[in-house]
Amino acid sequence: MSGFSRFTPLVNGLPSTVPFVGPEAIERQRGLAVRARIGANESGFGPAPSVLAAIGRQAGETWMYNDPENFELREALALHHGVSRDNIAVGCGIDGLLGEIVRMVIEPGAAVVTSLGGYPTFNYHVNGYGGRLVTVPYVNDREDLDGLLEAARREDAPLVYLANPDNPMGSWWDADSVTAFARALPDRSLLILDEAYCETAPAGSTPSIDALIGLPNVLRMRTFSKAYGLAGARVGYAIATLGNAQAFDKIRNHFGMARISTVAALAALGDRAYLEDVVGRIAAARDRIAGIARKNGLTPLPSATNFVAIDAGGDGTHARAIVDGLMEHGVFIRMPGVAPLNRCIRVSVGPSAELDLFEEALPKVLRAAR
Amino acid sequence: MSGFSRFTPLVNGLPSTVPFVGPEAIERQRGLAVRARIGANESGFGPAPSVLAAIGRQAGETWMYNDPENFELREALALHHGVSRDNIAVGCGIDGLLGEIVRMVIEPGAAVVTSLGGYPTFNYHVNGYGGRLVTVPYVNDREDLDGLLEAARREDAPLVYLANPDNPMGSWWDADSVTAFARALPDRSLLILDEAYCETAPAGSTPSIDALIGLPNVLRMRTFSKAYGLAGARVGYAIATLGNAQAFDKIRNHFGMARISTVAALAALGDRAYLEDVVGRIAAARDRIAGIARKNGLTPLPSATNFVAIDAGGDGTHARAIVDGLMEHGVFIRMPGVAPLNRCIRVSVGPSAELDLFEEALPKVLRAAR
Repeated sequence: MSGFSRFTPLVNGLPSTVPFVGPEAIERQRGLAVRARIGANESGFGPAPSVLAAIGRQAGETWMYNDPENFELREALALHHGVSRDNIAVGCGIDGLLGEIVRMVIEPGAAVVTSLGGYPTFNYHVNGYGGRLVTVPYVNDREDLDGLLEAARREDAPLVYLANPDNPMGSWWDADSVTAFARALPDRSLLILDEAYCETAPAGSTPSIDALIGLPNVLRMRTFSKAYGLAGARVGYAIATLGNAQAFDKIRNHFGMARISTVAALAALGDRAYLEDVVGRIAAARDRIAGIARKNGLTPLPSATNFVAIDAGGDGTHARAIVDGLMEHGVFIRMPGVAPLNRCIRVSVGPSAELDLFEEALPKVLRAAR
Repeated sequence: MSGFSRFTPLVNGLPSTVPFVGPEAIERQRGLAVRARIGANESGFGPAPSVLAAIGRQAGETWMYNDPENFELREALALHHGVSRDNIAVGCGIDGLLGEIVRMVIEPGAAVVTSLGGYPTFNYHVNGYGGRLVTVPYVNDREDLDGLLEAARREDAPLVYLANPDNPMGSWWDADSVTAFARALPDRSLLILDEAYCETAPAGSTPSIDALIGLPNVLRMRTFSKAYGLAGARVGYAIATLGNAQAFDKIRNHFGMARISTVAALAALGDRAYLEDVVGRIAAARDRIAGIARKNGLTPLPSATNFVAIDAGGDGTHARAIVDGLMEHGVFIRMPGVAPLNRCIRVSVGPSAELDLFEEALPKVLRAAR
């Protein structure tokens, strides 16, 4: 091996890996072109035209470092949520913030409670800091609040992860249940409440900001990657107590955010009309995906997100055959990683043309897979 | 304090801080507008028009996550440098990569050798992982290669930092001296050779890629922030052995790079004519800054970078008065942080209009400071 001889034992023990294989890598490896990119829970509807206009106007500013304090964006987010600027921490997507949170809380061997089949990037960061993953199975394709709470107490876990709505299943809890869960957690357990998909969730499923803002053991995570259509910009943020939001300043890469990304996020936040419109289009695309599934004898699961998990009626091998088969037709989708979730395939929303390709390819792939 | 009760002891002991206060923060705090932004070693000449055109063409792709493997950019960089794609690791600026390197190498208490007055962001990351900074004074405003080597040996330091050309002084070593230094280091010491400013350095001051590519204890750091004029895009990379480049994949945030930033970097790398042209303009601006300094009785130091350190003929308090005084005129510059370097002010290159403002304000500020 041609590496340095003296990396830390922790790092030496880690694999070189990637939490998600990108569609570009699949194209390269299999020599296929992606024609319908509906696998990474991006929004093929794209960002608002006003966002693209703002990027165009301000691209010339790229010679300047971004404001390391993200003042303007934090101020806008604070106004939007009715909190103080000091309640907001901004980072390179929720992914980046997750890494920072794990770093702040986890020492080697510490327990981290999450769901079995939950977000791989979070697990990646936990492993990266030597944490010990304690997983709780889903119940009826939802994260198990009682089970997570019990595990957090049993393990005296410093860190607990919950996504509401959930990825990869698209399921969700009502706001009251989530609030009760957060309040029931020991104050020695920090809850990461990942709300990446909250903009597309039904009314009553997201706790109000007020409901949790006072809790020093809750971080709420939001992103511009999903409904706002800005996955490539990498802008996420945490809503937290002042003490927790400021803690990120101890360790974060202050000069890590691209300047144009901040421009895009500010413009996106200001265009409520587009958000409302696109959330409607996302809901319609979800319905269409569910309809295609049913027409092919599969069972779509209810979804509060920008994707639909579809029970393909078999095991993980069967679902994998569908995922791989669709890619032969240029249709990129993904699937959950572990049983029993991996009886499903996961299809992200997108414009009609992309769903047309999915609709056309699915019956052919199912015939071949049976 | 409203923070979580159970951050790690290491994190609890860290201050919430920012390695560099941004010009935006200075504007907010002092109620002044920056009219000449020549303090952060950005390039006011901006990126190539071809880069802005590429951003405009591809901004619509922002709904897609970036390729987590950075394949295309690594391939282009590999071709550019005559190495393999597997010798390249890409990150959110050199700043982001520095944090990752420190994480991979430093456990609490481990010695890290750098120069007294060297790059604050590196020191920030070392502190953030509990490393112990061992500093070596500059000699004649250059980093002291013999002193750094001696300290690395004495401390059995796993990590050593050297910038060539240097920031904040603008000084440099010839390629042979740097190569000899790297080869003399114990193989138990990993050298971070920060070459952020290599594009603006004189011929013969940057070792060839071949000279160091085989060394498993050397990482060479490059960026698009300086000569390429893309500080706001946050694209840096390491040139390293295969084992070292792959090590980043164990811990990095794979989904941390903005997609437009990669587009910009690829376009910038492809426009050699612009780079050549702008390097000439940077050299001319350096000469003009030096001339302005001399005209005012100050002593410009030779510079291989996109800025000029100017000996203001006094102590740090005097230099600080000049920095603060210039800001009163809307001229944002910076200065080194420790004696004896802080007898200097540091002025970044920029277009004529910005240097005009510097030229106009400097004599007034010097009169007031004396």
